[in-house]
Amino acid sequence: MKPVVVAMPANEQLADELAAHLSLERGAATVRRFPDGESYARIESAIKGRDTLIACTLDRPDDKLVPLLLLSAAVREAGALSAGLVVPYLAYMRQDRRFNPGETISAQHVGAWISHYVDWIVTVDPHLHRIPDLSQVYSVPSRVVHAADSVAQWVRAQVRNPLLIGPDEESAQWVSDVAQQSDAPFVVLTKTRRGDRDVQVSVPDVERWRSHTPVLVDDVVSTARTMIETIDHLRRAGLVAPVCVAVHAVFAQTAFEELRAAGARDIVSCDTIRHASNRISLTAAIAAGVRAFLP
Amino acid sequence: MKPVVVAMPANEQLADELAAHLSLERGAATVRRFPDGESYARIESAIKGRDTLIACTLDRPDDKLVPLLLLSAAVREAGALSAGLVVPYLAYMRQDRRFNPGETISAQHVGAWISHYVDWIVTVDPHLHRIPDLSQVYSVPSRVVHAADSVAQWVRAQVRNPLLIGPDEESAQWVSDVAQQSDAPFVVLTKTRRGDRDVQVSVPDVERWRSHTPVLVDDVVSTARTMIETIDHLRRAGLVAPVCVAVHAVFAQTAFEELRAAGARDIVSCDTIRHASNRISLTAAIAAGVRAFLP
Repeated sequence: MKPVVVAMPANEQLADELAAHLSLERGAATVRRFPDGESYARIESAIKGRDTLIACTLDRPDDKLVPLLLLSAAVREAGALSAGLVVPYLAYMRQDRRFNPGETISAQHVGAWISHYVDWIVTVDPHLHRIPDLSQVYSVPSRVVHAADSVAQWVRAQVRNPLLIGPDEESAQWVSDVAQQSDAPFVVLTKTRRGDRDVQVSVPDVERWRSHTPVLVDDVVSTARTMIETIDHLRRAGLVAPVCVAVHAVFAQTAFEELRAAGARDIVSCDTIRHASNRISLTAAIAAGVRAFLP
Repeated sequence: MKPVVVAMPANEQLADELAAHLSLERGAATVRRFPDGESYARIESAIKGRDTLIACTLDRPDDKLVPLLLLSAAVREAGALSAGLVVPYLAYMRQDRRFNPGETISAQHVGAWISHYVDWIVTVDPHLHRIPDLSQVYSVPSRVVHAADSVAQWVRAQVRNPLLIGPDEESAQWVSDVAQQSDAPFVVLTKTRRGDRDVQVSVPDVERWRSHTPVLVDDVVSTARTMIETIDHLRRAGLVAPVCVAVHAVFAQTAFEELRAAGARDIVSCDTIRHASNRISLTAAIAAGVRAFLP
């Protein structure tokens, strides 16, 4: 029997696309809130003895985790052969160590909760920083899908004479991958600290790039502060308005509007979190990652 | 060293009152949300080797559970001798069995999560229905505080010639306790079903009660449908407008306004969930329950 894919609320499109790409049965589940704010979860399809996938991205995770864990429990208890989680954006990667006494490492706890309820996970470029590998927080097998190839394809097709720019050192490795795959040049901004609040950012060999279109790429764009500051640096260096590309379009509160107002020529994102800026589909890449867990 | 009590957001008053009643140190914790919607939890007081209480009621629980579990983890990891949860309103008591195939028993899962992170819990009248005892869903020791005595005291002091009324059979035992302790008469409404949608409700010996003030008492008032219907039945039976008493003032959406509009003479609640209707303090009763877990 075919594996089944069900959607958490607002993840229906992802589930539909996965079903189409992988020839899965598109299963039915009900997840809703009672008037008192508690969640109700029910798997409606017959999944006994069948591999079952749950599609659920995890931006703004707190009120999504409880119903996700309950639905995962329902899937297991209904006798699924396996329960897999397709989670394009995986939350709680930031607090990966105890920065101050009295803190907890939330990445470990959330990883343990999810690992308790599912048999495998597939995600897109988790914001791994000090944790080298997802297996250190997720005890179940996981597969990481990289967005770089799809982003590079988009840049190649849509941006004339691109210059890829990583806004900070954290993103450098990542952005250089995209640059390589899109046959585009790549620069790392140079920061010179002149005081606590006075950081001068310069673009090396700036004269070479005046006719290029800067393309800022980052994995997670939340408050967009880094991108907004980088746009400002580029303007002062005499470059044209950049295209901003986010893998994960978190865009907290008014961040998207602020980024637009800061002078981004265009703002583009992958579809790991539904957003008006989504223009790069990762479904095929995610489906390829999921295939490894299916018979 | 004194035990420490810390508050989850919006539970500061409860923590303050418990500290005062039980001579605890009022500890400091930070629980907040990052712009991207993830929670941050940190215990700031020195709690190593000390019994530590967390005050957190759990109405509208989904986005409270994640930060509560993270703070509980932080307390344990900071070396607390014990971590106790004072949770005046305990959520997820409703789904205590599988009513339909494909459902999960959310009471069991939420009970397991909380039991994993704390050493004991104290709560007020959990909405136990088919589960006879909290220990069937909470594996850690628990203590249930009963509101009946405090409600009865309030009724005795504030209502002239009260007639206590349980809106349905589920509440009968509970309301009869209150009646007994307030030396007030008590009636159970009689339902006669004439068809699927035609239920006639009558008040036995209605003539005896025309000069009484009906007092409707229920444990959880969420949508207030039961109370609103009961008010209607009482009006048709010729009784005066009732006083409505809730132990747990959940009041989903516009339920409070609807209950007022339906003709409640007054709406009063215990303070297990902060609400404008709070008029019966249970802090002393809760403190007595907590005392059992302190040295």
